[in-house]
Amino acid sequence: MVRLQGVARLGHPRWMLPAASAALGDRTAQIGMYGSICIASDRTLQTFATTSTSSSGSSTQRSIARFLGAGAALLAAVLFSPAPATAKKEIAVLPGSKPPAPFTPKSAVPVEKPGSAAAEKPSAPIGPPASESNRQRDEQGRPIFTREEVAKHKTPQNRIWVTYKEGVYDITEFVEMHPGGLSKIMLAAGGGVEPFWSLYQQHRKPEVLQILEPYRIGTLEGGAAAAALASATDSDPYASDPARHPALIARSERPYNGETPGTLLAASPITPNEIFFVRNHLPVPHVDAASYKLKVEGEGTRSLELSLDELKSRFRKHTVTATIQCSGNRRSEMSRIKTVKGLAWDQGAIGTAVWGGVRLRDVLKAAGLSEDDPLVRHIQFEGYDKDPASGEIYGASVPLHKALSLHDDVLLAYEMNGQPLSADHGAPLRVIVPGVTGARSVKWLRRIIPSASESSSHWQQRDYKAFSPNVDWDSVEWTSAPALQEPPVTSTICEPAPGTPVSVSDGEITLRGYAWSGGGRGIIRVDVSTDGGTTWTAAKLLPPPQGAPPPGSYTGAWAWTLWEATLPLPKPAAEGNGPATLQLVCKAVDSSYNNQPDTISPIWNLRGIVNNAWHRVSVPLEP
Amino acid sequence: MVRLQGVARLGHPRWMLPAASAALGDRTAQIGMYGSICIASDRTLQTFATTSTSSSGSSTQRSIARFLGAGAALLAAVLFSPAPATAKKEIAVLPGSKPPAPFTPKSAVPVEKPGSAAAEKPSAPIGPPASESNRQRDEQGRPIFTREEVAKHKTPQNRIWVTYKEGVYDITEFVEMHPGGLSKIMLAAGGGVEPFWSLYQQHRKPEVLQILEPYRIGTLEGGAAAAALASATDSDPYASDPARHPALIARSERPYNGETPGTLLAASPITPNEIFFVRNHLPVPHVDAASYKLKVEGEGTRSLELSLDELKSRFRKHTVTATIQCSGNRRSEMSRIKTVKGLAWDQGAIGTAVWGGVRLRDVLKAAGLSEDDPLVRHIQFEGYDKDPASGEIYGASVPLHKALSLHDDVLLAYEMNGQPLSADHGAPLRVIVPGVTGARSVKWLRRIIPSASESSSHWQQRDYKAFSPNVDWDSVEWTSAPALQEPPVTSTICEPAPGTPVSVSDGEITLRGYAWSGGGRGIIRVDVSTDGGTTWTAAKLLPPPQGAPPPGSYTGAWAWTLWEATLPLPKPAAEGNGPATLQLVCKAVDSSYNNQPDTISPIWNLRGIVNNAWHRVSVPLEP
Repeated sequence: MVRLQGVARLGHPRWMLPAASAALGDRTAQIGMYGSICIASDRTLQTFATTSTSSSGSSTQRSIARFLGAGAALLAAVLFSPAPATAKKEIAVLPGSKPPAPFTPKSAVPVEKPGSAAAEKPSAPIGPPASESNRQRDEQGRPIFTREEVAKHKTPQNRIWVTYKEGVYDITEFVEMHPGGLSKIMLAAGGGVEPFWSLYQQHRKPEVLQILEPYRIGTLEGGAAAAALASATDSDPYASDPARHPALIARSERPYNGETPGTLLAASPITPNEIFFVRNHLPVPHVDAASYKLKVEGEGTRSLELSLDELKSRFRKHTVTATIQCSGNRRSEMSRIKTVKGLAWDQGAIGTAVWGGVRLRDVLKAAGLSEDDPLVRHIQFEGYDKDPASGEIYGASVPLHKALSLHDDVLLAYEMNGQPLSADHGAPLRVIVPGVTGARSVKWLRRIIPSASESSSHWQQRDYKAFSPNVDWDSVEWTSAPALQEPPVTSTICEPAPGTPVSVSDGEITLRGYAWSGGGRGIIRVDVSTDGGTTWTAAKLLPPPQGAPPPGSYTGAWAWTLWEATLPLPKPAAEGNGPATLQLVCKAVDSSYNNQPDTISPIWNLRGIVNNAWHRVSVPLEP
Repeated sequence: MVRLQGVARLGHPRWMLPAASAALGDRTAQIGMYGSICIASDRTLQTFATTSTSSSGSSTQRSIARFLGAGAALLAAVLFSPAPATAKKEIAVLPGSKPPAPFTPKSAVPVEKPGSAAAEKPSAPIGPPASESNRQRDEQGRPIFTREEVAKHKTPQNRIWVTYKEGVYDITEFVEMHPGGLSKIMLAAGGGVEPFWSLYQQHRKPEVLQILEPYRIGTLEGGAAAAALASATDSDPYASDPARHPALIARSERPYNGETPGTLLAASPITPNEIFFVRNHLPVPHVDAASYKLKVEGEGTRSLELSLDELKSRFRKHTVTATIQCSGNRRSEMSRIKTVKGLAWDQGAIGTAVWGGVRLRDVLKAAGLSEDDPLVRHIQFEGYDKDPASGEIYGASVPLHKALSLHDDVLLAYEMNGQPLSADHGAPLRVIVPGVTGARSVKWLRRIIPSASESSSHWQQRDYKAFSPNVDWDSVEWTSAPALQEPPVTSTICEPAPGTPVSVSDGEITLRGYAWSGGGRGIIRVDVSTDGGTTWTAAKLLPPPQGAPPPGSYTGAWAWTLWEATLPLPKPAAEGNGPATLQLVCKAVDSSYNNQPDTISPIWNLRGIVNNAWHRVSVPLEP
């Protein structure tokens, strides 16, 4: 019985050196000797476990074969057998061997993915279907594939395809050789590699493209951007929703809500657009940027109508590096205490981007709004997104002081990380309210309404509020709590993922995660514990994203703080008392010295929002 | 064995009705029958306990005698026998009976009070020393007493004196008849009644003065204000410290630091000046208001010198209702986990006042400061208070954005609740930084210094910062944490006091307390529990002090929120399972949905600041 600690080790950079393959035979041999392999994951391939040791061929032969590429497909076929196209749980078992119990993270909620039915059929093509006679071809004669076709290829069984720009690549035979590890490259399966190359900057060199190019099998229809708009039908309001990167973990499909895998969050202070969490309340509206008009109309202002070009030309451009978080982030933990209503977010309904646009303040001033107008206390926003059944329009509001503050950087944003907003993120224009819960950063902005009162929308009045733990759906009085604006301080452990085995022989463990607080309050400290919170050590706070103030700032710290900590493994286990479980915990402190509460029960609330209790991750400690 | 539940019951208003005395004989009889009585308190007289039942005279006779006044002195003499003048612990035991163990709250720290030695002698005068031949007299021939003389009279043994305006009153024979209860009136013993009348507004009627007047025994030397300045000596830097109201619980004498008793905090949203907590780092400087000059000098400004009159005439007056809290409030709870350095504050290093003065912003603008000056990031303050040994001057600073914000209401205050500042509170001018820890509201303001850097003072750089629980005095790196500005959300239970017995037969219990958060974040909810935090109920939030925004405001909520909750007693005990202990808990939520942490250990820090864990009070539940 052999258990490796993680796929990442298998993909160590030294594997790229063929000359070292013989020396590494011991490790490759272990892989070759696997009688059955279980890979189970919430999108990361976390654990390998063997159940027998039957094998053929010498380990050295196998390792050399792999580097020659000849053995790669075979090995991949061993590693991956039929798995659902959603890639939520990938379990591969060789015939005749007994499968070990798959690891299923509690937060993994099965999701039905429309349009994926075809991909689940084992009859899906293996290898590039270049021989299809009616297939369109590009100028070089390469077959043209749609984004949807690419998305079906995410397992060795169906071949593993990715895109880079307009190119389509079959990397089935490369994944095992990926220097960054199998688990990381598999997150890109069926989608574009761009967000990951943006996270892991070692890809930004010509050699990487040279490695990729031989795997090209075709061209993406209309280029990388074209697939964003699928053809709409009249009957299904969600039919025109854009394609999403398969690495996003869908928590609902209609409307679409998807989160970033935890392991990717801590990889970079800026979250790539394609894997930035998506929180849609309604079908995605498609707003034509060329004919788009922003309306400002309400108390204390003269009506104003601005095209996107007018907005860009009449007002100075500002960029703000800000974290946006759904207030339901970490709801799945709260539901484990007692079920709450809402999307079962794990830790990934959060992300950080550099937003580009104009200041809301400047536009309001241009519409004639005075700070002293006694009739205006709130700025309401309306989106273009509309409930197809009731016709209700998405809306929210922020207090006037927030909208007008010179220091609060509220933007009307048309750019996200230097790119025009995508359909899922509010194209062509959205609000970005730094330091405030995501629900107020209204996407697909249609109207700005200065008013004496808050937005009357469902989402401002009867949602995104928290109550005492004893309040239930029968007793809740929505008016008794204010609409959530600034959320409280939070932090989570992104690495290791729950259940990742830790070896005593390592002597130490490295934790990575994020910490963030509302209102621009910087993170001044993150404490971590390996013993469930009995003893604590301060983590190292990593440098802020470009353009963000340093950790600990009293104001304007709109972006999260990433952190890492390497801690010695606790003594009792290290002394050989046998396998145990490490109770990893993190808690952050913001510049108002706010702390996270210890436990979830006392902050439990029927809507499952603002869960900012200590984040706890259990990992087995193995001899 | 009989145990009453509290002195307050004895002083119920019906006692004032002589016609009811016979009917109430049962209750008065119990008092008359006490063989020995123990009164133990941290300034409130919380519990009575009998150890025998010897008695003389019938209970009805006794109760009638008391109302006729003839028995009052005798009863008082029974209730009170020799006790230290500090009134920290008052224990009266009749000869021949065995005293029960006195109740000593953990937070009560014995304090030596200079100048009180004389008061401890049993030879102190009993009754007004009107016969002294050399005693000065007022125009009506009444003897004139000093504030110090009055302060010695705070037990029945030495007689109980109080002052009201310039009048001195011996109320020894009245205290038992006080409608508001013996415990409350005893807090005024040896001092002025004004702060209590201000807290309990039922005193604001002419009848109350008519009741008081017959007890007058003399006149206060120089009126009520004169005693504030005791004669100074050259040798003792603390000799000229002002007199303090005896109700303040001293936590240190040199420098003086005293807190408001918990039971008084929740009595009124505005804390009377005389019992407002005092936090002095150094001897109190005496600054002549007539010759006072405020200096503004530093980066980006032309030097400015302003007399108090100039300040008042040149700038518009503003008032702000703001809570000021020492960041060490509730330190004594933290020390119970592991000893920390600092004053052993209980819950009373906090208070709320209406501050009157001019805006710091206006003065800085008058000195020419521009918001955009890149050289100015902080506004430093220097006080007139100076370390007599090192010469170090008290100093602090706040970030520029706070000082200049139109909405942050930072004041240079010369008034506190409509009165000129007292010596202990910073006369003639102090800074009030709403929503920020008290240490930045520099008293006896001498200089304002716009600067690129924070104050270099000890109190900004090496104090008022918190670290991980594992950091000790050997490992602390002061630069690794930012200076505390806005403190986190907190709340405490002011009533009942710890150890106050609760009777199962009452069926319910009422809790009262305060809740407050830094940064102007209003309190949106206070949850209370009687079972240690397993189940919770939202308390009723009381109306805010005049001029303060309503509870739940996102900004500008500088004042605390008082709350109360009446809860059914937990079932198991009420069903007659015998005496138990109620674990009362409160926790508050601010408008950023910040919660208090559950426990103290994870936020323990070597300096013992910002303890905002749930506040817990244990009370015995009696059959």
